Amino acid sequence: MKFTELLAGAWAKNDSLLCVGLDPDPAKFPPHLKDKPDRIYRFCTAIVDATADLVCAFKPQIAYFAARRAEAELEAIIHHIHEFHPGIPVILDAKRGDIGPTAEQYAIEAFERYKADAVTVNPYMGRDSLEPWLAYADKGVILLCRTSNPGGSDLQALEVGASRTALFERVAEKVAKEWNTTGQCGLVVGATFPQELARVRAIVGDMPLLVPGIGAQGGDISATVKAGQTAAGTGLIINSSRAILYAGQGEDFAQAARGAALETRDTINRYRKET
Amino acid sequence: MKFTELLAGAWAKNDSLLCVGLDPDPAKFPPHLKDKPDRIYRFCTAIVDATADLVCAFKPQIAYFAARRAEAELEAIIHHIHEFHPGIPVILDAKRGDIGPTAEQYAIEAFERYKADAVTVNPYMGRDSLEPWLAYADKGVILLCRTSNPGGSDLQALEVGASRTALFERVAEKVAKEWNTTGQCGLVVGATFPQELARVRAIVGDMPLLVPGIGAQGGDISATVKAGQTAAGTGLIINSSRAILYAGQGEDFAQAARGAALETRDTINRYRKET
Repeated sequence: MKFTELLAGAWAKNDSLLCVGLDPDPAKFPPHLKDKPDRIYRFCTAIVDATADLVCAFKPQIAYFAARRAEAELEAIIHHIHEFHPGIPVILDAKRGDIGPTAEQYAIEAFERYKADAVTVNPYMGRDSLEPWLAYADKGVILLCRTSNPGGSDLQALEVGASRTALFERVAEKVAKEWNTTGQCGLVVGATFPQELARVRAIVGDMPLLVPGIGAQGGDISATVKAGQTAAGTGLIINSSRAILYAGQGEDFAQAARGAALETRDTINRYRKET
Repeated sequence: MKFTELLAGAWAKNDSLLCVGLDPDPAKFPPHLKDKPDRIYRFCTAIVDATADLVCAFKPQIAYFAARRAEAELEAIIHHIHEFHPGIPVILDAKRGDIGPTAEQYAIEAFERYKADAVTVNPYMGRDSLEPWLAYADKGVILLCRTSNPGGSDLQALEVGASRTALFERVAEKVAKEWNTTGQCGLVVGATFPQELARVRAIVGDMPLLVPGIGAQGGDISATVKAGQTAAGTGLIINSSRAILYAGQGEDFAQAARGAALETRDTINRYRKET
């Protein structure tokens, strides 16, 4: 099934715009898991199983796996999500970006090896660096636009061209008007800049926006939802990682994560339009 | 030893600005290797051993390994270079770019797991996304500036700010004047735009420039060297991948690669200043 259809299905079925980010850091795991050889797999699948009916997507961050030679665990976790929670898309957060022949290899990594439903990609190298990703017609390709970190403004807020729009707005325009000919694209727009999120939404119509930065990074949920939702009250994939993953430190950590996810989903829903 | 010192040593010892890019694609391997289970390791180490006295660096492209679950081979190849060819730096071409906590994980991947001497990084997320890399004081951090692919102009050539300089020039300015406080940075500047390479050189002083795009991508060696070299006739890491890796298809493929590397190194040297 196409990523966009999976996403729309999960938005509706779970009444949720919440995405749980899987950033497994064993140093933060509950004590009873810390020394287990399969700790990353056990931690992540426990989180997944406890929250799968509350989310519109899961977003594993590949860096946390690559730092610990845990590629096989990442494959197994994504397989677990697809097998036991069909209908919930997996967004591989990899922020890849390279020339065509190399991007082809990265697309094999993301879509054939890991079987992700969507991937995050960096737009700096331009349109032809996207084409190998878009060649996978069912997959989602979510481009960095406006990021929520302090240095995000260093380049993204620069005014470009005669119109003096910010670089991130130009990225949104290019994706919406030129690059997204197949309807596969989405954008990453941080929650820490709600006014800018509203400007991106105005440019891109109903395109899905992946929004990191609530929870640990401090973005405001009310402002995020109001600025970013579509007329239908969807269009957003609002990510929370640490605030959910590490909500508890006991043997019941997964239930604590479920509690945090439930509260976040419901807080988000409080600000959504009636649908 | 610091990356910059390794690089300067290799420039001098091998009288070479040539970097051999390790982009192993088994479909292009010589027939006698294609079906071997350790084909990637055998192919790459044969190329390395045949060319190590002709290069200033090796640049494995991680995507080619990740697409085939060949992370262990990549570790072994880098270990092989360090063990048998000490003094030749390894640049891990990964073009990573993410917020601080995630960049820390990527830096563990590149510098602790793979033990690369330098890495390529994408600047789109700004200064704080670089800091975890720069925390490894001996390592090189080579940022994308002006790339050699057709879509490279989509964002990089946009005019920014009141001064109407191109975005890639602004990146060069930011790195040279603000971000490179520790002397660890380099830039990627494609060979297909020699005039722009000259503009970057004028901005960044003696900073190392990694230049892909000669050989298969069509950049002109004479123009590249003249535009990019420093007053000392160095400052460049001129990469060639496919034209060297796949110079021969016989059992003597490594000797064919050596021949191609020797010719490329000597062609580059023909246009260098007397030192």
